[in-house]
Amino acid sequence: MAKNHPGNYFEDFRLGQVIPHATPRTVTAGDVSLYTALYGPRFAAQSSDHFARAIGYPNAPVDDLLVFHIVFGKTVPDISLNAVANLGYANCRFLIPVYPGDTLSAVSEVIGLNENSNRKTGVVYVRSTGFNATGAAVLEYIRWVMVRKRDETAEAPGKFVPSLPKLVTVSDIGKACPPLNGPAYDHALAGSAQRFGDYVAGERIDHVDGMTVEEAEHQIATRLYQNTARIHFNQFTEGQGRFGRRLIYGGHVISLARALSFNGLANAFHVTAINGGRHVAPLFAGDTVFAWSEVIERLELPDRTDVGALRLRLVATKNRPCADFPDKAGQDYDPAVILDLDYWALMPR
Amino acid sequence: MAKNHPGNYFEDFRLGQVIPHATPRTVTAGDVSLYTALYGPRFAAQSSDHFARAIGYPNAPVDDLLVFHIVFGKTVPDISLNAVANLGYANCRFLIPVYPGDTLSAVSEVIGLNENSNRKTGVVYVRSTGFNATGAAVLEYIRWVMVRKRDETAEAPGKFVPSLPKLVTVSDIGKACPPLNGPAYDHALAGSAQRFGDYVAGERIDHVDGMTVEEAEHQIATRLYQNTARIHFNQFTEGQGRFGRRLIYGGHVISLARALSFNGLANAFHVTAINGGRHVAPLFAGDTVFAWSEVIERLELPDRTDVGALRLRLVATKNRPCADFPDKAGQDYDPAVILDLDYWALMPR
Amino acid sequence: MAKNHPGNYFEDFRLGQVIPHATPRTVTAGDVSLYTALYGPRFAAQSSDHFARAIGYPNAPVDDLLVFHIVFGKTVPDISLNAVANLGYANCRFLIPVYPGDTLSAVSEVIGLNENSNRKTGVVYVRSTGFNATGAAVLEYIRWVMVRKRDETAEAPGKFVPSLPKLVTVSDIGKACPPLNGPAYDHALAGSAQRFGDYVAGERIDHVDGMTVEEAEHQIATRLYQNTARIHFNQFTEGQGRFGRRLIYGGHVISLARALSFNGLANAFHVTAINGGRHVAPLFAGDTVFAWSEVIERLELPDRTDVGALRLRLVATKNRPCADFPDKAGQDYDPAVILDLDYWALMPR
Repeated sequence: MAKNHPGNYFEDFRLGQVIPHATPRTVTAGDVSLYTALYGPRFAAQSSDHFARAIGYPNAPVDDLLVFHIVFGKTVPDISLNAVANLGYANCRFLIPVYPGDTLSAVSEVIGLNENSNRKTGVVYVRSTGFNATGAAVLEYIRWVMVRKRDETAEAPGKFVPSLPKLVTVSDIGKACPPLNGPAYDHALAGSAQRFGDYVAGERIDHVDGMTVEEAEHQIATRLYQNTARIHFNQFTEGQGRFGRRLIYGGHVISLARALSFNGLANAFHVTAINGGRHVAPLFAGDTVFAWSEVIERLELPDRTDVGALRLRLVATKNRPCADFPDKAGQDYDPAVILDLDYWALMPR
Repeated sequence: MAKNHPGNYFEDFRLGQVIPHATPRTVTAGDVSLYTALYGPRFAAQSSDHFARAIGYPNAPVDDLLVFHIVFGKTVPDISLNAVANLGYANCRFLIPVYPGDTLSAVSEVIGLNENSNRKTGVVYVRSTGFNATGAAVLEYIRWVMVRKRDETAEAPGKFVPSLPKLVTVSDIGKACPPLNGPAYDHALAGSAQRFGDYVAGERIDHVDGMTVEEAEHQIATRLYQNTARIHFNQFTEGQGRFGRRLIYGGHVISLARALSFNGLANAFHVTAINGGRHVAPLFAGDTVFAWSEVIERLELPDRTDVGALRLRLVATKNRPCADFPDKAGQDYDPAVILDLDYWALMPR
Repeated sequence: MAKNHPGNYFEDFRLGQVIPHATPRTVTAGDVSLYTALYGPRFAAQSSDHFARAIGYPNAPVDDLLVFHIVFGKTVPDISLNAVANLGYANCRFLIPVYPGDTLSAVSEVIGLNENSNRKTGVVYVRSTGFNATGAAVLEYIRWVMVRKRDETAEAPGKFVPSLPKLVTVSDIGKACPPLNGPAYDHALAGSAQRFGDYVAGERIDHVDGMTVEEAEHQIATRLYQNTARIHFNQFTEGQGRFGRRLIYGGHVISLARALSFNGLANAFHVTAINGGRHVAPLFAGDTVFAWSEVIERLELPDRTDVGALRLRLVATKNRPCADFPDKAGQDYDPAVILDLDYWALMPR
């Protein structure tokens, strides 16, 4: 029996299959420092134990996207090692805060399968859940991905296309945020006096700054997440491939754009849910990432007077500043757009 | 009201204005590891808890320059986002040691303002102080920086040029160093048998080694400090600018030169004060940094028999070894010189 | 007396000389995170405190090779700063597990000296030992290295060629591994169901994946180990040297190959000993590393029913996938081979 692991092909998946993933990972202050060094986030709650404790956390929680990347990374060897394309995310919810010292593991369930008409590939839908060492779910999301078949003549392993929520429901928003001590939330330390009530639907914010990405940076990040997708690391093979070079992990783009968004959304301290997202175009080393946001909706949360939720669209571009909000016109995006993410962030009221 | 933060322009500052800065930051063992990985320092007191405890610290203190960079980084969005040039430092004093777990924040006071005759820019003088979570000052320094005006016709916000000390006074030296247990200071572990009494004023030391800097390295470092100065990160914009490329944070050069200075100053374990410094020329990725030091003065400290202070000049060059001590002749520096720093270091007696 | 440290030359060594090395170093969670980010290892015992505790460790131990690199790094300024070539390793044994918080120091004893007939260089044999803060040896290995003479006319400092074991003996294997709770070793979390009994002598495993190395990555790694060998860091000098560029630390290659070997050896969770190894060819930034392993021997350990030892040959190549196991034919290696390492790994039974 082969000792190395070729990853699963489309015909290897079964509807309802539950896949526990390797490798469990204890998140530490070292990971937090690296995350800061790789993206430069400045949200006060995640940066300062003292600030976090003042507002109601026992300690600074780990950045939500770092949790996402670590959980996502675990799923790669089983779900997407033979993927052609990562098609989408849905219903991503942060359920419990993660702190340094917590050990994360992940399990995926196959919730949909749909062979493509060319019979060379099929779409696999999984619900992936990250757990801490107590067995509590810290994060759950649906992802669908187009996976190669090993053998084009193989029978499709079933066909079911799940219906996917376009939006995380209000009852699932805010779960990983303890009751906040609003008066203790220090505007000056947080970097902005603008709270929930200062934002209005339809408002667009240019995040101004740009960040150029180097090969070493995205490789260091992606290995930190123990994400083994080959396309990010292997110049020998990718040099002969579609792009002629290594492709940067899509999550790296999300984290860069989120860190840039501090300039305009400094108090949107917590990503509580991701409704969906699209990696519109690939990012490569040497490119400079810019970002802008649009406030889609301002949502008061039942039973919470401490925080409200902003539904935000976070658009990232490459090699193009965002002062004029490069966007989608009809089906087509401005050619500079690389990411269009729809998420809920919490903000103090 | 604009949500994004354009930074302050010259006419936005007021004499006596006190500016509390975002974002507070808990310093951790992760930051210390990254600092080691980025510069390669080998001073024993900062590297080993065991060594530090033996000589009188409760634990290994955080490298002084890491503390400086974190405090400095916080001031950037408010003080120097629209700076044309960082003109100088004075009276920089390390007041209390910082340990992993400490949370740092920073406040600046505007102590001088002087519009330039072209009326396009002005010099802003600030005294910046870093605090730990108990509210105690860990670091204080004066910095002056040339800042653009938003509107050239705007009235100057006042005019006052503070007198700046050329030298940190002896009473301010050594404050962040506990009484040392001299006999427990192990020469072999520290890397040199040469103590305070072995150095003489006028002595020059070539630090021999060179360190080439990569884009990923200085970006990772500068983000670790949450320093948002655009010129370090944005190749898209800087590619069209004065240098055609990203400029490396001046503090990165100081840390590289300090780490190189271990080879010749292994027992100068603590930077207790910086009298002043000049970034003589810019550093870019791909350049190799070398350094040499001159002992300016050897100072016995009142009431301390454990340590003495060496006033050192630390000169860094790019792409030029320092065996012959490239220097200043009159007003002009050797074209390879990039840094001329004047500081006090403590050394066991 | 010169303050800077030129390193020892061949004629400076003495048989029996004991050299305590600077700088002691407290290993932290930050170092572990960086190690993960630089190589992407996924062995569960080192990645998860929870997994490690379940199987019998008090916490996740520090990766064996990180311990090796830190100890090795300390020896460089005294042993190999003036080395022409690193010739070999022997009898490398991991004796006690290392945990975050442990402080490591190192001592070397000169156990052999042999001047070359050209009288320009000589081979120095040292036994280097890493200690934790309690004074217990955590790692011991023999290394021999060809070192320049300062003065070609100098008398050779003695001549003795020690006999070196080709193989670490069985009684020295497994010392740093506590008794494992086998049933608690979770296959799914560990990433493979294949245990000790599933491997057979002669079996070859292609580790499939490739990892491209960037200058920033190997410099960050090598500084993390406080390894000061000039050839890794100084493009100004190396650009004029033999290769025209910086040479990557050989230990970086070992760690990359070991991390790649997870794909096929996921349960070989602990490097217990290194019998020997050869850096067959240099690695440079931009190259992509691949690896394959051969099971040389499967060894049951006396008095241990929990784990067995696999003697493995780990071969790394550059810019050449290993599906056909590029190897040595007679004295000559396939030109792509860069590393040939012979080690013992533990695996649950």
